[in-house]
Amino acid sequence: MGSNSKEKPWIQGVVPQVIPPSLEDNTADVDRLLKAIKKSMGTSSVTAGFSLLKQIPRRLRECDFSVRAILYKSHDTWQLIDIQPAQSTGIYGLALDLGTSTVVIRLMDLSTSKIMEETNFHNPQIEIGPDVLSRIHFAATKGGLEKLQSLLIEALNREINRLTETHAIAPESIAGISAAGNTAMTHLFLGLDPYWIIREPYIPVVNGLQLLRASDLGICVHPQAPVLVFPNVGSYFGGDLIAGILSSGIAEGEDISLLVDVGTNAEVVIGNRDWLMACAGAAGPALEGGVAGMGMMAGPGVIDRVAIDPETGRFDINVIGHQPPVGICGSGLIDLVAQLFLAGAIDMRGKFVPARCGPRLAVRDGVPHLIIVSSTHSGTGEHLTLSQPDIDALIRSKAAMYTILTTISNTVNVPFREIHRFYVAGTFGAYINPGSAVTLGMIPDLPLDTYVPLGNTSIEGASRALVSARSRDRISEIRDMITYLELNVNQEFMNLFSAAKFIPHTDRSLFPSVKPYTPSPNLSLK
Amino acid sequence: MGSNSKEKPWIQGVVPQVIPPSLEDNTADVDRLLKAIKKSMGTSSVTAGFSLLKQIPRRLRECDFSVRAILYKSHDTWQLIDIQPAQSTGIYGLALDLGTSTVVIRLMDLSTSKIMEETNFHNPQIEIGPDVLSRIHFAATKGGLEKLQSLLIEALNREINRLTETHAIAPESIAGISAAGNTAMTHLFLGLDPYWIIREPYIPVVNGLQLLRASDLGICVHPQAPVLVFPNVGSYFGGDLIAGILSSGIAEGEDISLLVDVGTNAEVVIGNRDWLMACAGAAGPALEGGVAGMGMMAGPGVIDRVAIDPETGRFDINVIGHQPPVGICGSGLIDLVAQLFLAGAIDMRGKFVPARCGPRLAVRDGVPHLIIVSSTHSGTGEHLTLSQPDIDALIRSKAAMYTILTTISNTVNVPFREIHRFYVAGTFGAYINPGSAVTLGMIPDLPLDTYVPLGNTSIEGASRALVSARSRDRISEIRDMITYLELNVNQEFMNLFSAAKFIPHTDRSLFPSVKPYTPSPNLSLK
Repeated sequence: MGSNSKEKPWIQGVVPQVIPPSLEDNTADVDRLLKAIKKSMGTSSVTAGFSLLKQIPRRLRECDFSVRAILYKSHDTWQLIDIQPAQSTGIYGLALDLGTSTVVIRLMDLSTSKIMEETNFHNPQIEIGPDVLSRIHFAATKGGLEKLQSLLIEALNREINRLTETHAIAPESIAGISAAGNTAMTHLFLGLDPYWIIREPYIPVVNGLQLLRASDLGICVHPQAPVLVFPNVGSYFGGDLIAGILSSGIAEGEDISLLVDVGTNAEVVIGNRDWLMACAGAAGPALEGGVAGMGMMAGPGVIDRVAIDPETGRFDINVIGHQPPVGICGSGLIDLVAQLFLAGAIDMRGKFVPARCGPRLAVRDGVPHLIIVSSTHSGTGEHLTLSQPDIDALIRSKAAMYTILTTISNTVNVPFREIHRFYVAGTFGAYINPGSAVTLGMIPDLPLDTYVPLGNTSIEGASRALVSARSRDRISEIRDMITYLELNVNQEFMNLFSAAKFIPHTDRSLFPSVKPYTPSPNLSLK
Repeated sequence: MGSNSKEKPWIQGVVPQVIPPSLEDNTADVDRLLKAIKKSMGTSSVTAGFSLLKQIPRRLRECDFSVRAILYKSHDTWQLIDIQPAQSTGIYGLALDLGTSTVVIRLMDLSTSKIMEETNFHNPQIEIGPDVLSRIHFAATKGGLEKLQSLLIEALNREINRLTETHAIAPESIAGISAAGNTAMTHLFLGLDPYWIIREPYIPVVNGLQLLRASDLGICVHPQAPVLVFPNVGSYFGGDLIAGILSSGIAEGEDISLLVDVGTNAEVVIGNRDWLMACAGAAGPALEGGVAGMGMMAGPGVIDRVAIDPETGRFDINVIGHQPPVGICGSGLIDLVAQLFLAGAIDMRGKFVPARCGPRLAVRDGVPHLIIVSSTHSGTGEHLTLSQPDIDALIRSKAAMYTILTTISNTVNVPFREIHRFYVAGTFGAYINPGSAVTLGMIPDLPLDTYVPLGNTSIEGASRALVSARSRDRISEIRDMITYLELNVNQEFMNLFSAAKFIPHTDRSLFPSVKPYTPSPNLSLK
């Protein structure tokens, strides 16, 4: 956030010089206050909402007309949130990434743009359903939508309570919220019925949102605090991706860049400051480690990097937290399969090559399994294995990914080699070894420094929009720039997909850098 | 309202062409609706409040996307109030004059700008106190302010209920309210504490108000209906007078005009389209018929006009409703005293001339009384009399009035003769005989056609602002034009006041047209 710390805020505190009333100047209290704020801020338009009016005369007199005013900008008008004694300090905000599985919160100091704490909690809507589809169905039942919203808001309020206690600040000193999520999560956060999102022709309730107030949503911060909710582009391209575009900076420069956010869906945006083309498509959960028998989210005890020594066939496995491994995450899986391919242990079709797999290969219930970590070394007491179906699922996912990238590249007529930066968002992007992804043919064979991991771009974008008026203004500008490409799963798409279901691809000329090791013919995995 | 019927409304219904969603056009419901409204209205900015968002998808589908939208303009943005089936008709509004004694309501058809019904009810706050001062004191007691507000709002809601039943319209079809009242009444209507209005240095909570919503005030019309509350200029110059300036048109032309609204206070505005100077001062309740022993508000059985035949000394008395008289209103009192002066029955100081009063003059408890209607002809069974103290009070009031007019005329350096139109607002203005008021020296000796009675300018201004965007815009323009003149009751003011405490004035040259009859020396009242 450092580079943005000098940008103008849109939520701020000012200490206006309010001249106490006299017979010579008996302007009304509210008009007097607003006039002083205008002068202090050098702006022509400041207004106070009705609910605040009643309190202003008493509060002005309690403070002897020496107050700090907290305001936010809405269109060209500054709206008064509150007045406090002039010596008050501290003005805070919350940035939220409304994830389907995990909600990330950043407590920000709005006067310095600094992150005070980043924390997260499991989205309690998981108890209703693990994915948005099941939640959307539940929302259609009696009281279902209200239940989903209140689960989320209550968990958020508990976390806000903990944060404010930890940092010894009043909840009312939180004067603004910025929230980014996918389209379905945004609807559930706002209590809007997501029914039509998943039904042809796939219509959200709303794409572009006005600023709301915390009290509209029952969030326990200052009731007048503005809530900025990132807009959707459509049912399958949500505010989290607008936040990603904002934080990646791809819409700011002249060079053409690409941003990909990989989860159950792969969402892709390509463009520059002049144009943006976006699409989203099912990539399958393989890339999140969601299907492999030993797959899991990155965390302690999870394998995140794998190398196989081409000379000896030995595995070099990195485990997060350096403890006995219990599973493998998406990036570990990609490393593993890429290394197996390079070592000749799987072929172009992703099938195990028994001669090369050696004693690690076993067959259970007729399904080939490769033992990655034996029961004596694993943290589970059982073998950690990679099955043939695990590899098949990964190949389908990577083929889908590459096909989507090819389709959008063809549509905008920008060959991969003209892509200046290839940003990879999300947990996946933070851990992935781009070399392994190239080896598998998941992403184009570009110089590896083209690939830039960005981590959680949704929370980062939400944070920037919370602290910077310019970044907030960019949200709607970015949204209006985006052309959304509907992916038609037609014969051409299926042909591209079929060609991509090989490692790295049926057309090897697309991946000149991918060269399997040429170990001695007798080498097998150790 | 006829001349304004072609002005653009700021609350209106439109039937946009909403194209139903399809795979080719899967814009969100709300965005789709707003886009269609923008196109239909030829405007770039239309927004929908959060509380409406939840309902839009269902309502659009119930109507097969064929809807009428009700909107109002706020700054440069049209705000959606509601959507209804496209075949819906009728859009209504309420104009309110929030009087201390009487609340006047007009039910208006916003599509034609026509008045459907004008009605009124006694302000139920009277049960707390007859004047604003006693109510302001009551507002400072525990729960007092809430009680005063709810008395008014509940009575208003009862009247709205009756109006909507009479006209067979739904309360929700009332889509806007415009309200004008004095500063204290405006505070009590809004539930704002009027404590500082009557305490030095006399500070209202707020002068200029944003649009509110009916639900903010608990008014039972459409909850999203905008409520336009006329701004105050100060504690003693309220929104009712801004409404008066608006409806009088004095701020529209090049000629200099003057508007006076007489009640317990006399409020005066002078100016033209380039400048406005205003002041207010205590005139005493005499002019409302509030002090005279037989004084009362105009109504059936009340004397409103009096003439005395200079030849015979006979009284010619007009009674409202042509029934036996029970009292006299302000205009009747002014006529009566002016006629008594012209007939020589009272002298320049306002003292009875016994020789001229004849047998009508009686002394009760040492106080001279003139019998105006004998007990045999009155509706009360008792004599209706005018006492010497009644006349003294009237003379103080008229002197205050004339002094205020002189002061403001001197301040702006516009002699009375340069005043193009002299508008007299209120019940007083509607009934007063300007000739009698000139005779008493209450108002300047100008050609009588200079004086124009305007009736209730507060309800008229409120009505115009409700139906016309231009009139609504004029409110803040007019407010910003007004320079408020604080009346300093200094030696100069007291000197002017003393000189004006004669009929018509100590300086007879100011009133050349006032010529007492020269009846025969022996004539006395019959």
